[in-house]
Amino acid sequence: MAGSKPQFTVALGVEYDGSAFHGFQRQRHAASVQDALETAASEVADEPVHMAVAGRTDAGVHATQQVVSFATAATRSPDGWRRGISSLTPETVGVVWAKALDQPFHARFDALWRRYIYVFSDAPTPPIIHRRLATWSPAPLNEEAMNQAAQDLVGEHDFSAFRAAACQSKSPWRRVDAIRVERCNGYVAIDITANAFLLHMVRNVASALREVGSGNLVGATLRKLLETRDRTQAPPTAPAQGLYLVGVGYPDWQLSVRPPPLLA
Amino acid sequence: MAGSKPQFTVALGVEYDGSAFHGFQRQRHAASVQDALETAASEVADEPVHMAVAGRTDAGVHATQQVVSFATAATRSPDGWRRGISSLTPETVGVVWAKALDQPFHARFDALWRRYIYVFSDAPTPPIIHRRLATWSPAPLNEEAMNQAAQDLVGEHDFSAFRAAACQSKSPWRRVDAIRVERCNGYVAIDITANAFLLHMVRNVASALREVGSGNLVGATLRKLLETRDRTQAPPTAPAQGLYLVGVGYPDWQLSVRPPPLLA
Repeated sequence: MAGSKPQFTVALGVEYDGSAFHGFQRQRHAASVQDALETAASEVADEPVHMAVAGRTDAGVHATQQVVSFATAATRSPDGWRRGISSLTPETVGVVWAKALDQPFHARFDALWRRYIYVFSDAPTPPIIHRRLATWSPAPLNEEAMNQAAQDLVGEHDFSAFRAAACQSKSPWRRVDAIRVERCNGYVAIDITANAFLLHMVRNVASALREVGSGNLVGATLRKLLETRDRTQAPPTAPAQGLYLVGVGYPDWQLSVRPPPLLA
Repeated sequence: MAGSKPQFTVALGVEYDGSAFHGFQRQRHAASVQDALETAASEVADEPVHMAVAGRTDAGVHATQQVVSFATAATRSPDGWRRGISSLTPETVGVVWAKALDQPFHARFDALWRRYIYVFSDAPTPPIIHRRLATWSPAPLNEEAMNQAAQDLVGEHDFSAFRAAACQSKSPWRRVDAIRVERCNGYVAIDITANAFLLHMVRNVASALREVGSGNLVGATLRKLLETRDRTQAPPTAPAQGLYLVGVGYPDWQLSVRPPPLLA
């Protein structure tokens, strides 16, 4: 059929509750965000739809603004795509915006950067209502010390010390454009932007910064950890539930960040 | 056993995710917060515990600070009660604080006032991550108009127009001490304090105020609705999911309010 009909490209901004899924990527026997979205979009398009995605989030990781794209011969208005797909996905996934593009666009390969926010609660008791939406630190966190330590990560580095063993990327090098740790609505938020991320990279960075914030690691810790290039030297991976994909950057259009709702 | 051993009174501040329960009150075949707490406290006390509660919240209604009390012959430290009970409840219920009192105390009969917050989202698309924690209004809400209209409710009134048919209270009269509608973190929050509430009263008030906020009702609407004393004249009940019990007042001690985590 390709070539015989005009092909349009549709881009979607997607919010989801990661605790409802075994990650973004389609899996044979487990609920995935991709499967929920592709099934809904295929029904709206009345033809099979295959999606590209900006960030392949792990099981339990949330998104306030994941970006997906697909080619289709179907013509719908942006609002038709948005409402149509949202009405057919489970309540744990929703389309926040839709764009119909008249040029080729690939949510993954065209992305210049991804932005994630990791959220800790250091309240005296663990979050109950937000138990799936933040990670609890029983120790109070010093967000200024965390922010200062985090600046060691800015720039191009070999992130092997923060990379999961299962990571399939060819290169351990990534470029961190910005990282900022702030207290917001009582939570401690790590806001990090990079060209791309290795498997578990944000969660491993969050874990190391948490150790800095609770006083267990001091000084130029993250630079030293980076230099080891050894995952076994850095603290264990922080849980998925505190992590949100909040935005993606493309050459031709900028998205304003959608903060996690508990920080909004 | 009563009378043979010294009896202490324990008060607890409790947070729970109401979407996990069929309300506070114990039921024969459905999960209740009361059952979760009494089962845990009985194990910690090593004797059967029966709890009094400040606010019997409906199914789906959350609490950031419900207050319960119980008499017991067991002596534990406040932190022992707090940690012990929290460790035995499901993850959807947690004890935020505990007090061991040397005088009789009844969480329900000694309460001078209850404070609830109802949360609307009027974002362009429905909340996904917070779908159980706020009620979506597709129409934008004018929080200032809502706040102005809400002031009609302050004082002692017959609240029959805002009372569920199934309400078993002897009197429809209640005293609203304060009501304030504000935009907070992008949400519209209705913060209402009264000596006590009728069944569904906050949700019926929230529903009427939502109609004011979206421009469907204008003028001295709530006063007119009050005067009808007729439930059928007021808009239908707003969903449980937007409602939080946030604090209770007692003669001898004041609790600072715990806002819903999405407004914190």
